[in-house]
Amino acid sequence: MASLAPAHAQRAAKAAKAAATASRVDLTDSLALRKIFDEALLRGQSYENLRYLTGTIGARLSGSPQAQQAVEWGKLTMEKAGFDRVYLQEVMVPHWVRGSKERGEIVGNKGKEIKVALCALGGSVGTNGKLKAGVVEVRSFDELRKLPEAAVKGKFVFFNRPFDDALIEPGTAYGRAGDQRRSGAIEAAKRGAVGALVRSLTSARDDNPHTGNMSYDPAVTKVPAAALSTLAADQLSLLLKANPGLEFELQMECQTLPDEKSYNVVGEIKGSKYPEQIITVGGHLDSWDLGQGAHDDGTGVVQSMEAVRLLRATGFRPERTVRAVLFMNEENGNRGGIEYARLAALNKETHIAAIESDGGGFTPRGFNVESEPAIMAKMAVWGPLLQPYHANSLTAGHGGTDIGPLKEAVKPKALIGYDGDSQRYFDIHHTAADTFDKVNKRELELGGASMASLIYLLSKYGL
Amino acid sequence: MASLAPAHAQRAAKAAKAAATASRVDLTDSLALRKIFDEALLRGQSYENLRYLTGTIGARLSGSPQAQQAVEWGKLTMEKAGFDRVYLQEVMVPHWVRGSKERGEIVGNKGKEIKVALCALGGSVGTNGKLKAGVVEVRSFDELRKLPEAAVKGKFVFFNRPFDDALIEPGTAYGRAGDQRRSGAIEAAKRGAVGALVRSLTSARDDNPHTGNMSYDPAVTKVPAAALSTLAADQLSLLLKANPGLEFELQMECQTLPDEKSYNVVGEIKGSKYPEQIITVGGHLDSWDLGQGAHDDGTGVVQSMEAVRLLRATGFRPERTVRAVLFMNEENGNRGGIEYARLAALNKETHIAAIESDGGGFTPRGFNVESEPAIMAKMAVWGPLLQPYHANSLTAGHGGTDIGPLKEAVKPKALIGYDGDSQRYFDIHHTAADTFDKVNKRELELGGASMASLIYLLSKYGL
Repeated sequence: MASLAPAHAQRAAKAAKAAATASRVDLTDSLALRKIFDEALLRGQSYENLRYLTGTIGARLSGSPQAQQAVEWGKLTMEKAGFDRVYLQEVMVPHWVRGSKERGEIVGNKGKEIKVALCALGGSVGTNGKLKAGVVEVRSFDELRKLPEAAVKGKFVFFNRPFDDALIEPGTAYGRAGDQRRSGAIEAAKRGAVGALVRSLTSARDDNPHTGNMSYDPAVTKVPAAALSTLAADQLSLLLKANPGLEFELQMECQTLPDEKSYNVVGEIKGSKYPEQIITVGGHLDSWDLGQGAHDDGTGVVQSMEAVRLLRATGFRPERTVRAVLFMNEENGNRGGIEYARLAALNKETHIAAIESDGGGFTPRGFNVESEPAIMAKMAVWGPLLQPYHANSLTAGHGGTDIGPLKEAVKPKALIGYDGDSQRYFDIHHTAADTFDKVNKRELELGGASMASLIYLLSKYGL
Repeated sequence: MASLAPAHAQRAAKAAKAAATASRVDLTDSLALRKIFDEALLRGQSYENLRYLTGTIGARLSGSPQAQQAVEWGKLTMEKAGFDRVYLQEVMVPHWVRGSKERGEIVGNKGKEIKVALCALGGSVGTNGKLKAGVVEVRSFDELRKLPEAAVKGKFVFFNRPFDDALIEPGTAYGRAGDQRRSGAIEAAKRGAVGALVRSLTSARDDNPHTGNMSYDPAVTKVPAAALSTLAADQLSLLLKANPGLEFELQMECQTLPDEKSYNVVGEIKGSKYPEQIITVGGHLDSWDLGQGAHDDGTGVVQSMEAVRLLRATGFRPERTVRAVLFMNEENGNRGGIEYARLAALNKETHIAAIESDGGGFTPRGFNVESEPAIMAKMAVWGPLLQPYHANSLTAGHGGTDIGPLKEAVKPKALIGYDGDSQRYFDIHHTAADTFDKVNKRELELGGASMASLIYLLSKYGL
């Protein structure tokens, strides 16, 4: 030790002191968090905000009039809540519309028709009238590739691999079944199929079809793609076993219109000590057109605004700048997330962390963190403060789609996803059943307060 | 050490070895638990059992024909599941009936009437025609006792203390507001009131009245007691401020009939090594008459049967005897729980632990344990095994009402309550909205598997 040069020794002492400060949590913090939760549970505004967003505005797919209403509402709501600065970030977004007609029928022996529950996948082309063809069922792209040409050509490919229900996290099951929805139409068309029918991405057995984004390959013919409800998928599968020659008739009038102008909505509170250091907290304002976009992602939107409001309402002036961002177009393009990151880089902003809530407004468990072990360890020190609220789980995992582009653009120290209990999420995800009544007020509020608590700590101690 | 007599040394060595064995968990256990969860999530029977119990049989208040149907169904279900022995324990239960008419109106200025949502509290006497009187609002028994006689005599006492929403556990809020429902009628009558109107025990603001048990004091006049929905309570409170002289008109035809014969249903698997050591797992078969008794406590019933079935289905032969018990009459008397304990003592049974699920069939957090610190520490060793299923929380707390009487009767080493996330529970608890559709299949199954896992460990290692 004595052999260290004085400058080294000073630096080492300073670093040790900084580390001690950064990992120190005290009674003040414990009481501050209790105050945040009190405010959320006793005088919370997120539930009534969500009622308006989902009930009065409703579903708000990118490019729709409702998405524009949501932008104006978000701006107004943050202005009324007394944010230092509220502004819009312009971004061009895709504009896909479902059209008025959408139907499918299994045409069995002797022309008997059975109507089934389905919906177009987001981004799909329409059928240009009625499209009738045979059906070939597969469980994977591999299975499809191994089929002889004659078995696929001119038919619908029916992708019917279910969720793996043994997985404890439904999000993992969603991820593993997702290729069918995202790329099913491409893989089907490559083999000469006329369309793709995809089993809805859910464990639930019911008649709600689940929409969601799909994509085309410019080098491959665009064929229409629809999601069948799980009951419809089970029925089709059973009937195919009895009668492999049955046909399916699909009619969809969906289409992609020219891009529309839209906006991210940003509300900011200037940091009192390090205003140049930014903490982002956000959800996405757009939603699918079925249902009301309640859990996906109305809850993330109102929780993000609420998290910042809670800090203000409890008299806490953050040392670092806090930004609530209502991102546009997460569902079918992520244009808002990309634009937010582009501007952050362009303006040479310093982002220390970004938090996203886009897994539904369910009871807190904690946070998923994309970061380095040393940063995770720093955050783990805060665990005991969040434990009374059951929000202390810290897992290495996905931060969020909207905040994702920040990673390359401005290299924040952590991308953080709010982690709520998600067992119910995929029952209603992207369906007509994703409505306000599915959201529990207390679960929503506990989530928002957990996010506010993390922002309090990030703002006070940095990362 | 050398000074120990050989016998002492041997005993000490034996004890040390036993302790090591008791706290050892190994890969076998980890794989056994994964097998249990696979069986629950992929081939679970609890959800379909619950569908039958709630949908086909429905609400099943003690003494009702539906309660008897539930007894027969429970016995048959366990017999079909291949339990070693299934039998009934006879018990006499109270038989209260709601009657066909149940209504309440606020009678304001100029005789204008506003109908409000209410229901009789379980056990209440009827009104014997229409009962019309003024209303005095209080928040506590203390406040009531301090009122002058004239302010109370001949009126309804309106107990309107809300849930404390700042509490993180809704069960605690329920406990703290519960005296109004349980003893409101007694306290009101003591002061000469004609009836009690009680704010429903919930955080939710809606028009569902919440029933629940109330009691009378043999020394005090029996006056009728009703629960108002929270919206009705808020309305009545507001109108009282504007017009303290308003009246309330109540009509209820509920009554208590003679006791009925009923049963606990017990299903047993004999322990392979220590058959005399018993582990009980149970829920209560009776429910309130509104709704379907889904979360309260259909879920506990089907989870208890499922927990034992899961052990069998995964090829596990428990070393200790495991008993699934479907208790009768938890809601308004606990006669089943008392009788089960009485017989256990009479037969000099050895009970090492009893588990109850009666907080709704929600996502697991872990278990509440009534025991000594040394036993808690022993159980804590199992935490890492339950962690992958988010069921590893171990909290000192209430085991359960049905298993409660075992404590005095046979002194089990631990009374254990299944601890699920309860934020949604009191929205629907004891209401017409406690129906099958409120139960999520995966949450139910994860809970049953968590209980089975704990039984596996208790049976293997003892306590």
